[in-house]
Amino acid sequence: MLALRAGGAMTKVLIDCDPGHDDAVALLFAARHLELVGITTVHGNSTLDNTTRNALALLELAGLETAVARGCAGPLVGSATHAEHIHGSSGLDGATLPQPTRQPVAAHAVDFIIDQAERHRGELVLAVIGPQTNLAMALRREPRLAGWLREITVMGGSTTTGNVTPAAEFNIYGDPEAAAAVFASGIPIRMVGLNVTRRTGFAAADVARLRGSGRRVAAVIADLLAFYLERQREAFRLDLAPMHDVCAIIPYVFPELIRYGETFVQVELTGAATRGMTVCDLRSLHPGTTLPARLAKTCNAHVALEADSRLLINRVIETILTYP
Amino acid sequence: MLALRAGGAMTKVLIDCDPGHDDAVALLFAARHLELVGITTVHGNSTLDNTTRNALALLELAGLETAVARGCAGPLVGSATHAEHIHGSSGLDGATLPQPTRQPVAAHAVDFIIDQAERHRGELVLAVIGPQTNLAMALRREPRLAGWLREITVMGGSTTTGNVTPAAEFNIYGDPEAAAAVFASGIPIRMVGLNVTRRTGFAAADVARLRGSGRRVAAVIADLLAFYLERQREAFRLDLAPMHDVCAIIPYVFPELIRYGETFVQVELTGAATRGMTVCDLRSLHPGTTLPARLAKTCNAHVALEADSRLLINRVIETILTYP
Amino acid sequence: MLALRAGGAMTKVLIDCDPGHDDAVALLFAARHLELVGITTVHGNSTLDNTTRNALALLELAGLETAVARGCAGPLVGSATHAEHIHGSSGLDGATLPQPTRQPVAAHAVDFIIDQAERHRGELVLAVIGPQTNLAMALRREPRLAGWLREITVMGGSTTTGNVTPAAEFNIYGDPEAAAAVFASGIPIRMVGLNVTRRTGFAAADVARLRGSGRRVAAVIADLLAFYLERQREAFRLDLAPMHDVCAIIPYVFPELIRYGETFVQVELTGAATRGMTVCDLRSLHPGTTLPARLAKTCNAHVALEADSRLLINRVIETILTYP
Amino acid sequence: MLALRAGGAMTKVLIDCDPGHDDAVALLFAARHLELVGITTVHGNSTLDNTTRNALALLELAGLETAVARGCAGPLVGSATHAEHIHGSSGLDGATLPQPTRQPVAAHAVDFIIDQAERHRGELVLAVIGPQTNLAMALRREPRLAGWLREITVMGGSTTTGNVTPAAEFNIYGDPEAAAAVFASGIPIRMVGLNVTRRTGFAAADVARLRGSGRRVAAVIADLLAFYLERQREAFRLDLAPMHDVCAIIPYVFPELIRYGETFVQVELTGAATRGMTVCDLRSLHPGTTLPARLAKTCNAHVALEADSRLLINRVIETILTYP
Ligand SMILES: [Ca+2]
Ligand SMILES: [Ca+2]
Ligand SMILES: [Ca+2]
Ligand SMILES: [Ca+2]
Repeated sequence: MLALRAGGAMTKVLIDCDPGHDDAVALLFAARHLELVGITTVHGNSTLDNTTRNALALLELAGLETAVARGCAGPLVGSATHAEHIHGSSGLDGATLPQPTRQPVAAHAVDFIIDQAERHRGELVLAVIGPQTNLAMALRREPRLAGWLREITVMGGSTTTGNVTPAAEFNIYGDPEAAAAVFASGIPIRMVGLNVTRRTGFAAADVARLRGSGRRVAAVIADLLAFYLERQREAFRLDLAPMHDVCAIIPYVFPELIRYGETFVQVELTGAATRGMTVCDLRSLHPGTTLPARLAKTCNAHVALEADSRLLINRVIETILTYP
Repeated sequence: MLALRAGGAMTKVLIDCDPGHDDAVALLFAARHLELVGITTVHGNSTLDNTTRNALALLELAGLETAVARGCAGPLVGSATHAEHIHGSSGLDGATLPQPTRQPVAAHAVDFIIDQAERHRGELVLAVIGPQTNLAMALRREPRLAGWLREITVMGGSTTTGNVTPAAEFNIYGDPEAAAAVFASGIPIRMVGLNVTRRTGFAAADVARLRGSGRRVAAVIADLLAFYLERQREAFRLDLAPMHDVCAIIPYVFPELIRYGETFVQVELTGAATRGMTVCDLRSLHPGTTLPARLAKTCNAHVALEADSRLLINRVIETILTYP
Repeated sequence: MLALRAGGAMTKVLIDCDPGHDDAVALLFAARHLELVGITTVHGNSTLDNTTRNALALLELAGLETAVARGCAGPLVGSATHAEHIHGSSGLDGATLPQPTRQPVAAHAVDFIIDQAERHRGELVLAVIGPQTNLAMALRREPRLAGWLREITVMGGSTTTGNVTPAAEFNIYGDPEAAAAVFASGIPIRMVGLNVTRRTGFAAADVARLRGSGRRVAAVIADLLAFYLERQREAFRLDLAPMHDVCAIIPYVFPELIRYGETFVQVELTGAATRGMTVCDLRSLHPGTTLPARLAKTCNAHVALEADSRLLINRVIETILTYP
Repeated sequence: MLALRAGGAMTKVLIDCDPGHDDAVALLFAARHLELVGITTVHGNSTLDNTTRNALALLELAGLETAVARGCAGPLVGSATHAEHIHGSSGLDGATLPQPTRQPVAAHAVDFIIDQAERHRGELVLAVIGPQTNLAMALRREPRLAGWLREITVMGGSTTTGNVTPAAEFNIYGDPEAAAAVFASGIPIRMVGLNVTRRTGFAAADVARLRGSGRRVAAVIADLLAFYLERQREAFRLDLAPMHDVCAIIPYVFPELIRYGETFVQVELTGAATRGMTVCDLRSLHPGTTLPARLAKTCNAHVALEADSRLLINRVIETILTYP
């Protein structure tokens, strides 16, 4: 396995993230399979200070030298929501990570995204696996950005049920206005939501497999995921450590593992019970149906509907085990 | 089959409806299996004039003498939404129904509901299979009503996707404020939504079976459903004539055919993309999970999650065939 | 003074109220000047039980025999808001009122309104000086009601600032959905809001004048208003006991005392900071301007813009002093 | 006249604007009285291309060399609203302005604001006289900005009535989310809204006075304002060309001309009829009242309540006449 896409250059990807346990796994996975042109950080699972330090510490752990640009510390409107009950007070509790020896680049994440997109015009995939503030800011600042990006791959939202609220998923809830701007931007969007990611995770046996491997990086990841799995048990009675974020990277490596459908997605901003919901028009996607013209709106996203979760997790484990 | 619940008296039910093709089937089904204490009519699939005339015509067709009380012609706020593209301009196109020989009772539906609930205190099930205006009006007018009803069974809403909009189902969308008042009333609620009812319908072969039976009532129903099936094909590319409303009656006759889960349902009133959505907290209902105390709200409804759709439709067909 | 409209029969009025200190004054004023065909009660300043008992007690005090019909105990959606910090725990604290010897009529307020409007077709003014639940219920129940009423006079809302919130006035905030239905009903509406009523009140000297009159009814009203004035001082630092409700009656007795402008009023239902606001399109009503066609919407209300507050209060005092 | 504040250095101001006729006058006024450290442009009265070109052309006209930085072309969420019916298709119709010989600076407005605020830490007043997108972007990008600015002076909103809608004023309506972020930022805010600015304008005689002066700049401004005055007549039946934007500059030159009150201002984002409204808690500001503790929220703005409009316009005219 681990073969790249036949005959081709690797996809260039920039990851905008808030590490976060599942972000950590997504970063390690992407660095092994894709041309990772940079990492930008954002508020989300923890404070911007924490998520930035965590990104640097993970690169240190994995021996990677990817550039990290520090981004926005809160959403466009209102104040930041963190998830300490899931990720701990550091945003990445459960293991002692190495002290980073490198610093973030001087450029702000918003500029870094714009610069990389211009440099890799038409080729760059932006993977947004935290709240979408940096991208929304970049789109507003540089309108040509929408034309420069190849596509956006998002971990966020849900075609069914949320986690922060019954209707809203954490990344979208963390900056609904930013997500609304992104989904209205006209950039091709690939969205994998909770409907898929919540069922795609590490069980205790998977954590044990990492730990038993005798490899240094895998052992640290095992410690992190053991913590994270315990928090899932407490918070959701879930015996699975969901790998939300890596699901947004998978399509560029193993495209067959997640099936998408094309639809219209609108981010709800004003609902008393639904703020931050990704309202997906699934009427077109029911088995046996096609949305009639009268109901159709221009589709703006491909939304993940199904995944081969077990295979996907196996690929992730195998990738982690390629680290020393 | 058709045996009633072992050893017991039949459930007393009052049906609040907007016939409508699927209402028609629900009425015939209920009249055969339950003690139908009355029918109230409401705006919805068509105008109040039409739905009231249709209710009377159906009773005429089936040789029934149930009392019909005329109700509200529009929602608490705003104006009525009809579904002529599904049910035709009469609300029940596709067959010539007999001219009703009887009239609605003098009492308004709101008073009729209150009176019947008081008379059958603790025993009456109110089946609301149209917009919930009449019940909301009755609850506001007579606060003791909430204590008099045994429970409410609702066809409306969805745990997943809507039909009028991506998020909202027709009956709830038709009067969201009324539904909000009903779901906040404290009365035990059993809700069957589109997630179940959209997949539970008559195929062309089922219509043919009714038509081929040689029975008078079944032949008329076949004509009605042939029309309705054709509209589903046009509107939703659906090769099925969904029996939404009868699903709210089934639990009192064949309780094993639909499985419910208990949860908290909130009707969204203010969402730009989600007005009229029944926001169900399904986080507690995922396989293998229990909602932790930190997330739990007091459950206010049992929500249908799965049905044996084929068996259910067979029971409905068999019931229609008991009519002359 | 106290002359009726030249040569004419008195206006027939039905008062829908939630007494309440200012309601009390409005009732006494109306009973002396108008043909008061009945009183209906509603939740609002206090519970429905309290407002109904208070209405009966006031009639007892004043020796009046007007019919009282009991109405709705809460709003169409949500639960009732009371104003105990203004009106005390009885809704009419400050004096011991006589025990009522009469009962409410058997009819519910909703039916009573419909019956009286039908009986006095084209002649009846409905004065709504509490939350508008009863009228909204009546309009939904009997659509012909809109054509039967001569007009509605409302105390509620504001062209400027609210009292319950910066944007919302108590009566509208108490049932925004009902008010939205009323303002959309097409019935001619005369609205006097806080912008006028807050400046139109009894000063301490006015209370003293009532008390010093030696008259029984005036003495009780003086005690009530002394309590109410004290609450205004506490709650709003206002040295005035505003006579909100009587301002809705004044135009049928002394039409010159309040000036109205015609405009479009919309009741805000969804605003996070503005729910219950009466959004008045005053762009047309600025001195020296006329709303251009491009901005105009069909006007649905005459809104009070100015009052001769001192003259108005004098007329009210003089009226109270006509009671024994 | 034109004397600066006694004994003191001039206030340093950066103007964020969307010229626009009234912006034009504000720029000329500010350049004569204050230390104008720069101008940033934004979408609003016209497209960003137009407002940027207009800013440069005005400087050319007036012989000024202030730096101009180009900003955001649309709001944080949604798309831009322009006012061509008021300002013409160029955003500044009515006169032929000189071709700009200079270019905008390389820095984006968002960076320019941050840089100038850091350089003039504690001293800089930011005058926001268009939609507030640039400032909201800058605050999100550089959280220390809030501490660097002396204060913000805003033309926008209203304590009473709007112009784009009955409740919303153009600048706030043009980016409600940005305004919400600004009003929640904790920076001292001075807001002058439509309640004051709509009555503070040039009459035809004032335009004639400029034109009759024989001065070059004044003649061009006269042509611009003649066009603008005509549009006001058409759009609002207003015989006055309101000088909205200069009112935000006045307090730093002639502080006695506008009176402010301190209050809590919240920008409504979700209201169906009130989106973009500046909800001001004026309950505390009624004559003779003080908001009681129970109602008080932390004040976040000084809001203009009254102006000496005639005097103010005279000062503006005199200033324009100081140009060659
Ligand atoms: Ca993440
Ligand atoms: Ca129905
Ligand atoms: Ca009242
Ligand atoms: Ca401007």
